[in-house]
Amino acid sequence: MMFDFNDIPHAERYKLIVSTIVPRPVAWVVSQDADGVRNAAPYSFFNGFASDPPIVGIGIGLRGTGKKDTLSNIEATGQFTICLVSQAQALQMNITATDFGPEVDELDEAGLETIPSSLVKPPRIAGSPVAMECEVYQLVPLGLHTLVLGRILAMHVQDDCVLNAEKHYIDSPKLGLVGRMHGRGWYSLTTERIEIPRMSPEEWAQHKAAKKG
Amino acid sequence: MMFDFNDIPHAERYKLIVSTIVPRPVAWVVSQDADGVRNAAPYSFFNGFASDPPIVGIGIGLRGTGKKDTLSNIEATGQFTICLVSQAQALQMNITATDFGPEVDELDEAGLETIPSSLVKPPRIAGSPVAMECEVYQLVPLGLHTLVLGRILAMHVQDDCVLNAEKHYIDSPKLGLVGRMHGRGWYSLTTERIEIPRMSPEEWAQHKAAKKG
Repeated sequence: MMFDFNDIPHAERYKLIVSTIVPRPVAWVVSQDADGVRNAAPYSFFNGFASDPPIVGIGIGLRGTGKKDTLSNIEATGQFTICLVSQAQALQMNITATDFGPEVDELDEAGLETIPSSLVKPPRIAGSPVAMECEVYQLVPLGLHTLVLGRILAMHVQDDCVLNAEKHYIDSPKLGLVGRMHGRGWYSLTTERIEIPRMSPEEWAQHKAAKKG
Repeated sequence: MMFDFNDIPHAERYKLIVSTIVPRPVAWVVSQDADGVRNAAPYSFFNGFASDPPIVGIGIGLRGTGKKDTLSNIEATGQFTICLVSQAQALQMNITATDFGPEVDELDEAGLETIPSSLVKPPRIAGSPVAMECEVYQLVPLGLHTLVLGRILAMHVQDDCVLNAEKHYIDSPKLGLVGRMHGRGWYSLTTERIEIPRMSPEEWAQHKAAKKG
């Protein structure tokens, strides 16, 4: 079935995008305003995009017809942290997704402890298996959304998920992260996995010859 | 454990990014050069970012020290399709991830049939549960990577995964998509899921009061 995106309103296009592009990694973004009032909120229009410079992107929509606190804070201070969300913290993450006013500290509401960052002012969330300290690299306006491109200054990984610190080997399954699926609150787990190793052109040629043989 | 990104080379930063930001949705990108030679390749620096205009982003790195065919084609023609990858097509997707030269048609190598697109020249992959016809919206240089921002012109969804065409309800689990995990070839499935519905501020206030009571 074909949906012509010129024929349908943007709220309906949004439904199609978020219910098909799955599973999406979740960025739990911590920021603070010029007075230090903290904000935390999850975003799933999120991914890594580059390694030199090391860049992540987050698509931030509107709050009603105005700006979300996360974007206001990032514009005001240029800094934020991104914490990744394990199944163990998913309920608390969901509390911070509630549409509170700018005066509310979502971290307090959800009973979350924080750890001071090393290179930026916003703290990171204790218990998050991965946290990235970021500064703004570029803001790309995309109509009603803004794409925040952030440069990763430092990454914290939970000690028992680091397999080899020198070689930067991480035990990704052990992070226990969730991926955003569809609807008001469906998430996928990363517990069921398949392995399909990439092949070199030579390996593929051998494989093909064997199939024909 | 903290990794200061100023202290480590970009190939090592890349390892940390792709082994922590998981699960990542997979864009199977079909493009063609000015002469019509087709290319297909999977990318997991991918997500939706906006709905008005409807924008997806794909981070494309280098092939050795040169440009990947996907990026050359997109720059030359401004068009591409994105097919989403179900577990049923994961093996064929992996064949198209092989580092073939620009003269090789990955779709032929993997034995994939295609369907002509309605609004762009590159075809879409038959059997892919979701396909998007896209045109270039903006190219954002990010050092060694290029972020391709594409505007979705149309989306095709497999008939039996559309729950309600008028309301644009999709049966996301039925799409059976895979998410990119770590290493040379680990993917997560979307078969194990949890539901944590978002709350309104009023629902949260009631929930909090009940916990205290």
